[in-house]
Amino acid sequence: MNFSSKLIQDAVEQFSRLPGIGRKSALRLTLHLLKMEKGEVRDFGEAFISLRENINYCNDCHNISDLELCEICANPNRDNQTICVVEDIRDVMAIENTHQFKGKYHVLGGVISPMDGVGPDDVNIDSLVEKVSKGGVKEIILALSTTMEGDTTNFYIFKRLKGFEVKMTVIARGISMGDELEYADELTLGRSIVNRTPYENSLA
Amino acid sequence: MNFSSKLIQDAVEQFSRLPGIGRKSALRLTLHLLKMEKGEVRDFGEAFISLRENINYCNDCHNISDLELCEICANPNRDNQTICVVEDIRDVMAIENTHQFKGKYHVLGGVISPMDGVGPDDVNIDSLVEKVSKGGVKEIILALSTTMEGDTTNFYIFKRLKGFEVKMTVIARGISMGDELEYADELTLGRSIVNRTPYENSLA
Repeated sequence: MNFSSKLIQDAVEQFSRLPGIGRKSALRLTLHLLKMEKGEVRDFGEAFISLRENINYCNDCHNISDLELCEICANPNRDNQTICVVEDIRDVMAIENTHQFKGKYHVLGGVISPMDGVGPDDVNIDSLVEKVSKGGVKEIILALSTTMEGDTTNFYIFKRLKGFEVKMTVIARGISMGDELEYADELTLGRSIVNRTPYENSLA
Repeated sequence: MNFSSKLIQDAVEQFSRLPGIGRKSALRLTLHLLKMEKGEVRDFGEAFISLRENINYCNDCHNISDLELCEICANPNRDNQTICVVEDIRDVMAIENTHQFKGKYHVLGGVISPMDGVGPDDVNIDSLVEKVSKGGVKEIILALSTTMEGDTTNFYIFKRLKGFEVKMTVIARGISMGDELEYADELTLGRSIVNRTPYENSLA
């Protein structure tokens, strides 16, 4: 695309760096900014700069937090013995919304992905091993996505924690609530048969 | 959504202001910024602030331009007697890509839309009338999207220019009704410039 203005071109290029935003969408967003007030656009741009420069992570679970310890880690009512391993803050939010988990989290900040150049040292696994090695942790729940990267990461964590006295579980894979059986994929349906649960549990 | 960080919340709210971006997408984009380098995010934010503060419009056609006169208006080889009226810079870019138009543009900067509170005074119609009243313009090509707002704007311009000795045409409706100009393929869009029809015909 050939723009009549360098300013437009710069803004379009910046928007295009975001995942899922092509150049046409980027131009549409750029033109939207031009219809906003100057002060609003200043707030818009500065929010991202401030985010990146002042972001802080919880010292314990590595979740994004404005304080040294995030609200969950600082809460004395949460169960210290159960740790749920997730990829990022979105997963923490999703699980918190269910109100079903009273333990603590460990946020990896990514998953192992050799294709993208992300190795075991690029995600927060060492600190998880350290946490477990100190004792007191009874169960690690692996709650990563069922992608190749998620499975690889699960397996790597499993290997690293094998020597410790800790129970390792993964979240149940099965048919979504409300889904029709005939539309479920074979792998998920098969898994849901193998890992069937007592009927009583489904009444909760 | 309940975020563990005010910085995240601010960034998500700013992204959510953009058209077509909901809060889940906004969070995804925000987390993407956290994986970028600080300097890159600074460039990202500043591109938008600089855009909004330093943007300049062509004195003649109102297109976005870094100079007093845009490249097209400053080009002595372009036909001064034919003016193509478009909504915004995206339409100029789309028509330029067809290489079918050798005249000049007049960029309205919007279309009349009572629903959105956009009246005739909010778009650059007065300066178009002034341009025509000075003489020398033989033809006005109306190239707005075939939406209700586009049609309303076409009709308003037609009324305002009725007293002048100027031919008024609209681009051929080879473009599907309801489709946006910028998404039309080049062949159809180019053909619609070549086969423009008298405005009166479009009322039938």
